[in-house]
This record gives sequence, structure tokens and C-alpha cells, in this order.
Amino acid sequence: MATIRPARYLNTSGVLRPSAGLQRSSHQTFRPLGSVRCKSGPYGYTQAKALVFSKYGEPTDVLNLHTHSISPSLPAKAVLVRTLAAPVNPADVNTIQGTYGAKPTFSSLVGTAQPSAIPGNEGCLEVVSVGSGVTSLQKGDWVVPAASGFGTWRTHALVENADSALLRVDKDGLDPLQVATVSVNPCSAYRMLKDYVDLIDLNVKSYASGSAGGGAWFIQNGGNSGVGRAAIQLGALWGLRSINVIRERDSPEATEAMKKELLDLGATVVVTEKEFLDRSFTSRLKEEWTRGGKDPVMLGLNCVGGKSASSIAKSLSQGGTMVTYGAMAKQPVALPTGLLIFKDIRFRGFWLSRWAAQDKEGKKRTIEDILNLTRDGKFKDAPLEQVKWDWDTEEKILREAVQGTLQGFRPGKGIFVFGET
Amino acid sequence: MATIRPARYLNTSGVLRPSAGLQRSSHQTFRPLGSVRCKSGPYGYTQAKALVFSKYGEPTDVLNLHTHSISPSLPAKAVLVRTLAAPVNPADVNTIQGTYGAKPTFSSLVGTAQPSAIPGNEGCLEVVSVGSGVTSLQKGDWVVPAASGFGTWRTHALVENADSALLRVDKDGLDPLQVATVSVNPCSAYRMLKDYVDLIDLNVKSYASGSAGGGAWFIQNGGNSGVGRAAIQLGALWGLRSINVIRERDSPEATEAMKKELLDLGATVVVTEKEFLDRSFTSRLKEEWTRGGKDPVMLGLNCVGGKSASSIAKSLSQGGTMVTYGAMAKQPVALPTGLLIFKDIRFRGFWLSRWAAQDKEGKKRTIEDILNLTRDGKFKDAPLEQVKWDWDTEEKILREAVQGTLQGFRPGKGIFVFGET
Repeated sequence: MATIRPARYLNTSGVLRPSAGLQRSSHQTFRPLGSVRCKSGPYGYTQAKALVFSKYGEPTDVLNLHTHSISPSLPAKAVLVRTLAAPVNPADVNTIQGTYGAKPTFSSLVGTAQPSAIPGNEGCLEVVSVGSGVTSLQKGDWVVPAASGFGTWRTHALVENADSALLRVDKDGLDPLQVATVSVNPCSAYRMLKDYVDLIDLNVKSYASGSAGGGAWFIQNGGNSGVGRAAIQLGALWGLRSINVIRERDSPEATEAMKKELLDLGATVVVTEKEFLDRSFTSRLKEEWTRGGKDPVMLGLNCVGGKSASSIAKSLSQGGTMVTYGAMAKQPVALPTGLLIFKDIRFRGFWLSRWAAQDKEGKKRTIEDILNLTRDGKFKDAPLEQVKWDWDTEEKILREAVQGTLQGFRPGKGIFVFGET
Repeated sequence: MATIRPARYLNTSGVLRPSAGLQRSSHQTFRPLGSVRCKSGPYGYTQAKALVFSKYGEPTDVLNLHTHSISPSLPAKAVLVRTLAAPVNPADVNTIQGTYGAKPTFSSLVGTAQPSAIPGNEGCLEVVSVGSGVTSLQKGDWVVPAASGFGTWRTHALVENADSALLRVDKDGLDPLQVATVSVNPCSAYRMLKDYVDLIDLNVKSYASGSAGGGAWFIQNGGNSGVGRAAIQLGALWGLRSINVIRERDSPEATEAMKKELLDLGATVVVTEKEFLDRSFTSRLKEEWTRGGKDPVMLGLNCVGGKSASSIAKSLSQGGTMVTYGAMAKQPVALPTGLLIFKDIRFRGFWLSRWAAQDKEGKKRTIEDILNLTRDGKFKDAPLEQVKWDWDTEEKILREAVQGTLQGFRPGKGIFVFGET
């Protein structure tokens, strides 16, 4: 067995800078998912791995898998967590590419040679050990990061100020994937719909009261995205009907299968982008779905941009609002002035990170609400492609799982599921 | 003297359909401006002229000067008014061109061979005679139309439901031009600024409290337009600082003269479009005017579109709103997604006609407020090119005055001033 040297020094956050001779310990214990298990290094140090990047670029070019150690002596207000599951969201990839609105902080906290950042904004984490001054968390608790930019793509993390940095969730009846995916897409859909539901209700009352089959609609592109699927389900629970635009699949059969899948989730109408951008769409909207325009379409959700965004805006009723939360087509939103002036269409953006930073209590309540729906079988998480991350998983596999996420609106984006770490 | 046949029949609005043989009467009386005078036809009929169009097109192609008669026997709730002054606004020209959001109603009310519409959304009208059932108006009162689409480009009008169709103004200390120009541009500026002033105040408190020279800004293109000049003055009265973009004039001297004119009105900063679109503008905004961005720019007013609109949006502080009320460049507003999502910039439109229709009382109060400021010498109407409209004024002169209005942001747009009619 190779000689193991202890890590040389702790930095201020309690995270070890690397020891050149640090190697895997043989004192490893593997326990089933959901229990506490850590790869122990010498003197009780936890050995950890993290995906890091020290410059912007394509994930396959700039992501490195970095190994470091974490001291067993926790600061009073810190906890040690291990990651059970952590999704790869488009915003994570944009952050690595350097095109995201919020720039990460590059630091040497996990002891990389160059200052680096750890991607990953959400995940399900399990508390492994607890500092003496932590009041809200216990060993074995499941938690999610309270704010964006946590860096969940790592096996373990030492979390300072754990009471404010982490939100405890009730894990009863849930699996780690359900908890890991609640913070970004379902929360976004929840907030964008909820913030406009009063407005929509108002219009339902005035436009469609007493009418058979009447009621308010919302319309969205990215119907098959994580946010799209969450919006379909939450909207249906809250009495909203939805028109959902999806990209054509590889075959007509696959397109029909996806339409059926979204209809089963609670979508009222699903159309392909081709149908949506066709000239006939306006009259279909009016005649087939909104009783000649009597039922209002007061909210549009846009994550595409370009022509698709313009068509969402044109589909809205007088006084409606289009909320932009993404830009998959990488084209700006072009607004015909008439829509602004004469049709009183309003345009806003939604950024989850801002909301979460401004309303931490609101985020906690939203997560609890969605997880309650999940537990009751009323809310389904989006299908994800599980990428197993064990101690021996190669860097290449993890990198490619990240790179593959920006392939449009396919379901089955990646989620790291941590096993033997 | 030619034989005069009486008009053949009254239509339902009390406006005469034309008599083929109708001719000018010789019983004409001319009284000085401000007094009541009508060109009398036979049997007490008032002879009137109106600019009309029966199809969309360029004003010089489609506008006709039409003569008709109005019966002396008024319906109970009607009044007869004569026009003292009526401006030519860009929206009027767009209406004639058929490019405006609200389409006029083509009718035969004034007895044109083809169903036709009378342009002109604002004006100062004088009550000439009053039906027995009218409660709010007396002979000699000055009034303005309560709603858009009145059709002020005519010497006289018989106004049904006069109590709701007209707003009486206190003419004391005012001239007809000041009253005629209050309804469109100053009202627009007033509403767009006032509706955001609370928001701006809020931010002034948080950003700039206690700071020397601090305070909130708004930024606008079309600084020299009727709305722009009104916004400069009202903003200054309400404690807002303004950055105003103007087009370059024909000579550097003329540009400097215009800058000085707007600064004298109360503008804080005036820049040419070239300066505005230059790369250096962002740093000038930050360093020269907003104390490194500490003083917020929460409101942008856009009547141009295209690049100018994008630059307005980019100049706004986090959470700011751009209000679009015109599209002189005839180019859509392109919104970089990042401004929506990460900078939380909001985009809305303002349409005076909608506001006036929804809040008649608000319009009345706004007009009174602005006319009080005018009377007190605190608000100046924009310089206008007066086009005299007498009974003998040729159609060609009136047409060309209309056509000439869409020449950019020059001051001195036309206003019809009625003399011997």
C-alpha cells in the first residue's frame, strides 16, 4: 500500500488545499444509497472529488475532475454534506461557457492549482456531519442549496453558515432525484405562473364567467423542457389551460408520442414548432381553442427567442404578458411596436437566481409545496438520463454528460447520481 | 346670386346629407377670433367645411376638403361647435395612411359621396349653440374632445351627447393654441411619467438618499418632439432629471441652438443621436451623470424604435422600464434576452387613446392640471407652424400642411388656426 501523507494545510473555509501525495485510502466503506458513507482518508479526512473549471469554454475542453480532502474538524457553523444527485441544467453549461448573466467566483477553496469554480446550481445533498453551532440540521438530513451558485457537481462539500446556506427538506416518501430537481425548473415554472395567476383569474372572471369550457390559457414554447413540463402540471392543478409548443422529433411517431406524453401530464393543446409558426395558427388559436378570442391568453412563457418569441407575443390577448426565461435560439426578441402600443403586450424576464436571492422564505415554501405535490403523486419530475458518478468514474464520462445537455429540448438531460464515492 | 336649395334631409345624427345644389351663402358674418361667428346658409343652416378621406393613402392624395351644411335645429343633447385651432399630429397622418392601430369609422355623416372619415384627434372648440337637454356647456365655452377620433379638422361640428363627448376647459388666461395642443402630447408625457414616478421615488430613496446631486433620471429619444418637450418640463417640475436624445440639425449651430432650447425648458442633459449611439455613451452615462451608476435611470421613453430603442433599454438601471409610444424609425424593438432576464428590464407600450377611453375623469384632471401649469407660466406648449384655415383657404394648402408633418422631430409641426370660417 502506498504511503499516505496528510494534507498539508487548511484554508480559511476549512477546505483542504491539496497534498501532492494524497491518494485514495484503502479504508473505504460503501453503504447503500440514502445512508451516510464517506471515503475516509488518513486521520479521518474525507476524500472528495469535484468537477472544476478555471477558464470559460466548452465543457469537454475546460472541465477537470479534481480530487481534494476535507478535514474532519468542522467549523462550528459548518456541515459536511455528500451529494446524492445533481442535475446538469442549461444554465450550468452557459455558466461554464461564460455566457451566463451571473459570473462564478473563481477561488482556490478546493485547492486547485488555478483559481477555479465548481458548477451545479441544484442537487440533493445529505448531511454527513454537523458543526457544534448548527441549529437547523442533523446528520442524515436531506438538504438543497438555498441560493444559486452552490456548486453541486462534487461528491462532498464543507458548507459554512449551513443554517442559512442550506434548506432542509422532508425526505419522507421522496427519492434523491425528485429532491435534486425541484430547485430550478419546477420553482421557475411555479413562480412565473403563480405571479400572474391573480391577473389571469381577474380576466377569467370578466371574460369567461359562466361559460361552458371557458377559462384562461397560457402559451409556452419549450413545452417539453423541464420548466415546460412543470408549468403544464402546475397550470393544470391551478385551473389554467395550456398551449404547448414542442420541436418536431426525429419521426412523426416520436412527435405523436411526445404530444401524448405532455397531454397525459395535463397539457390542453400540444403543437409542433412548425404548426406554431404556420400562418394558420392565429385562426386555429381563435377558432379551435379560445372561442373566438373570448377566453384570454394572458401569459406567455418564452425560453427560445427569435421568431418563436414573436409568435408567442402575437398569440397573447390584449394586455397579456410574455415572460422570457431562456434563449435557446440565441436570437433576440423582436417586438413589433404595435404589439406594445396598441395591444398593450408587456414584456418581462424571469431569473430564478434573483428571485431566490430576494425571497429565501418564498423559495423554501415553493420547494415544500412542490415536494408535497410530488409526494401526493400530483407532480412528476421530468425524465432524466442518469449518469452514475462513482469514485472511479472517469473524468471523460462526466465531461461528456455535461456537454450533451445543450441538445435542444430533449428530455433526458443529464443528472449525476452519486454511488460509491 | 345663385339659387340656394335647402339641404334635402337630416340623417340620424342631425348632420345634413349634402344637397347637390348647395352653395356658399352671401349672408356671411366675420367676427374676431374668440367670439361666435358662423357662416350662415339659408334658413339658418350653418355652412361647414371638413377635411375628409374615404380611402387610406398619402394625405396629398386622399384628403379632400368637403363642404356641407348643419341644421339650426339641434337635437336636445347636442351642441354646435366651431373649431378655433386643431393640430396635425403624427398619429393623425398615420391614421390617414392606414397604419395606425385604431381604424377610423367611415360614414356618410357629413354627406360625402363615399363613406368618409374626418381626421384630427385634438383641438380647441368653441360652443356656438346648445341643445335644450345639455347640462354642462354654455354658448361661448371652450371645449376639447373627450375621446380620440373626434375629427377636429373641420370648421364646425354638430356633437351628439355633448355632455360626455366634450370636456369644458377654463379658458381664462389661455389662448386657443394652448388649449388645442394639451390633449395629445402633454397628456401622454404626463401619464407616462406620472405612472412611474412612485417607482422612481422608491428607488431614489434607496439609491440616492442624502447624496449631494443625487436623484432619479429618465431617458428619452425624441427629446424635441411634442411629447419630449412636455416630458422635460413635467419631469423637471416633479424632480426628475432627464437625458434627452435629439437628431442632429442641419448645422452644428442649429444643433447647439436646439440643445440650448431644451436645456432652457428644464432638460438636464441633451445629446445628439450620434453621441447617443456612440460606444462612449455608456461610460459617459455612468461617469458624467449618474455617479458611477448610483443614481438610477428607471424610466426610458421611446418613440423611435430600432437601434435607438435598444440603446434606451441598455441605458436603464436594473429593474427599469422602457415605455414605447411611437415608432418613427419604423423598425421593431429588438430586445437582447440578457436585458430581460438578468437586468430585469421591463417593456411596455403607452397608447393615449386607450388611457383616455378607460379613464375619462383622469384625462379631465390631467388636462386641467397641465392648463393650470400653462396659465402659471410653468409649462410651455411646443412651437408650431400655424396654418391659417379661412373659408377661402385652398384644399391644396391644407393637404400639404398635413403631409409635411411627418418630417421627423422638427418643431413647428402644423396646427390649423381657424379664422374667417
